[in-house]
Amino acid sequence: MRKVSVIGIGETKMGNYPERSLKNLIKEAGNSAIADSGIEKKDIQALFIGNFNSSLLCSQSLVNGLACEVLELDNIPSMRIEAACASGGLAFRQAYLLIALGLYDCVMVGGVEKMTHAPSALVTEAIASAEDYELEVTKGLTFPGVFALIANRYMEDYGLSRRELSYIPVQSHSNAYLNSDAQMKKLIDIDKVMNGMPVADPFTIFDCSMVTDGSAFVILCAKDKLNQFTSRNTGVVDVIGSGHGGSWLSIANKNLTSFDGTKQAAKEAYQMAGVSAEVIDLAEVHDCFSITQIINTEDLGFFPPGKGGFAANDGMTAIDGKIPVNTSGGLKAKGHPIGATGISQIFEIVTQLRGDAGKRQVKDASIGLTHNLGGAAVTCAVHIFQRSE
Amino acid sequence: MRKVSVIGIGETKMGNYPERSLKNLIKEAGNSAIADSGIEKKDIQALFIGNFNSSLLCSQSLVNGLACEVLELDNIPSMRIEAACASGGLAFRQAYLLIALGLYDCVMVGGVEKMTHAPSALVTEAIASAEDYELEVTKGLTFPGVFALIANRYMEDYGLSRRELSYIPVQSHSNAYLNSDAQMKKLIDIDKVMNGMPVADPFTIFDCSMVTDGSAFVILCAKDKLNQFTSRNTGVVDVIGSGHGGSWLSIANKNLTSFDGTKQAAKEAYQMAGVSAEVIDLAEVHDCFSITQIINTEDLGFFPPGKGGFAANDGMTAIDGKIPVNTSGGLKAKGHPIGATGISQIFEIVTQLRGDAGKRQVKDASIGLTHNLGGAAVTCAVHIFQRSE
Repeated sequence: MRKVSVIGIGETKMGNYPERSLKNLIKEAGNSAIADSGIEKKDIQALFIGNFNSSLLCSQSLVNGLACEVLELDNIPSMRIEAACASGGLAFRQAYLLIALGLYDCVMVGGVEKMTHAPSALVTEAIASAEDYELEVTKGLTFPGVFALIANRYMEDYGLSRRELSYIPVQSHSNAYLNSDAQMKKLIDIDKVMNGMPVADPFTIFDCSMVTDGSAFVILCAKDKLNQFTSRNTGVVDVIGSGHGGSWLSIANKNLTSFDGTKQAAKEAYQMAGVSAEVIDLAEVHDCFSITQIINTEDLGFFPPGKGGFAANDGMTAIDGKIPVNTSGGLKAKGHPIGATGISQIFEIVTQLRGDAGKRQVKDASIGLTHNLGGAAVTCAVHIFQRSE
Repeated sequence: MRKVSVIGIGETKMGNYPERSLKNLIKEAGNSAIADSGIEKKDIQALFIGNFNSSLLCSQSLVNGLACEVLELDNIPSMRIEAACASGGLAFRQAYLLIALGLYDCVMVGGVEKMTHAPSALVTEAIASAEDYELEVTKGLTFPGVFALIANRYMEDYGLSRRELSYIPVQSHSNAYLNSDAQMKKLIDIDKVMNGMPVADPFTIFDCSMVTDGSAFVILCAKDKLNQFTSRNTGVVDVIGSGHGGSWLSIANKNLTSFDGTKQAAKEAYQMAGVSAEVIDLAEVHDCFSITQIINTEDLGFFPPGKGGFAANDGMTAIDGKIPVNTSGGLKAKGHPIGATGISQIFEIVTQLRGDAGKRQVKDASIGLTHNLGGAAVTCAVHIFQRSE
């Protein structure tokens, strides 16, 4: 397979923008990525876009055609991928693979979501559409409940306390405080998390990721064709591994404390990259809920099963820790613009590998990983990136 | 690129099944395709599925996870593609490309849609989500109106009469009458079409495709690995070309009488196959409305611009004509289970190339083409198939 590089990134500040349209969000993030890449629009051969619920919340499907129109990309193939919260990560994988395998040379990939304009009951219903409607949603189980079941099982099995779980969002808020694109800019402490509004036992509001409007885009190019498309010769980041894993929709027959989809995706990505978890310098992982971040860091091989929460409490996932996790602030505090989340994670890793992350910069970051999960670990994308020498 | 073969096909009878669930439809079509292929479930390495509007009409997203669960496919990567009416065709393309390019050896691809349980106003709204919501839908323009504008422009430019346009659905009904999977089994004549209930001038109800529940699946396998997966040695059909084209979402700046997305996709598919339109023995083309079938047969190169309607009236698209079109009955009369339509078209072509089409069999059919369109020609997939010698 050919080597593929990320040559441009762009995103909106994540936030609460009920007055902004899908078009407006796409336009800002997309044109920012194009400008950052130094390529001309005419060189973009295809566009892939992740979007979860604009059909439901914005009466808008075929968001790929909308993006081509807004970004003035003429007559190119385009496609929308819906993989719930992993929509962005899987859109990125399709674009990456079709360049790596030689079909295209230069592709644009993005994600967008617009949710805060809708009543919260409708947002909850839209998000719950990524569960099994017949088996779960009609019984009153929505996602906070799904992951609360998971948290209870994990805490019981491994002895993680409510106080230790609370450290996860504290760190996310602390990292987001250093990120100008983050939706949440407020430092919190463990007592605040524990005393927050109850959502689904053991979760308080601080264990749950945000409802976010936002968009993010990246430009991918075959590494052997870089000179044809851009004069950029610094800040190029290579994609060295890609993995896709999955499991069934409902949680009825699932292991609740480890996700097969993540492990499959990680295995594929590590094999492709020829590296193991030990060499990863930093990772953005899918922290839709506090417990998810902990389980992900175990499934990705950073910590043994049952140890991820304790490791975080020991400072191992901090910006200056052994394996910094969610330096951006993660879904919890940077924000969770669902279809854009997987691309926004890549935005952070590329920013870090370029050395452009300012006060949250991970020292000597060379290899970074993104992990994007859809549904109750129903579909999962893992990508590994390396600073180009 | 490696050669890829279709080794199994399955579909539900298309119909009006308000009482059947998405799961029920998927189960029948999917297991039928697996049985037809002769492979074991454990050999399926990935699943791609096209679905347009189950998020809106069934409160169900992540249909890929649902399909893996229903079909008991363990822990494999899966993905849903939403490309409006081209969802199935684009899902097929992803599966095809990832085998052709060497990533997977054996992949399952399908589509599903369930619509007839919903009130017709909601179905209209769901379908209209594939237009530009801000520019078009809020102004009262839904799809019959979009394609009526196209029909009026075409009839004015090329002198096609309302009577001549009416021949298209007459032929579709006639073909569907010979297809046991078709939703509509009623012969009609030109006067019936012309005197049908008005929908959007010049269209009557008979110019418009159906609202359909249904599902279709196929199994794809690397041709050089066939012996590893199946004992099937007859009825194998090779995919020899794949194309994907697109254009902007709204019709504001579009050529209304020829679709760039189709032309791009056809060009790519013909080039990959190393063939031209002249060698195609039969085609399933996207007849969401009568006028669309005519334009498609021109954009695909079967007839010159402005001549497609007259050619059909001259019998050239009949089962025994120069280039039989929509022998299945097409979207108009076989049915239009939106996310499954592109796969259902492939089901028909494979059936024909196997020589299994009974009374609607095209004599000596060797090379067939499918053309699947999403939105107002916003995204388009073209595939070319050849009977394996």
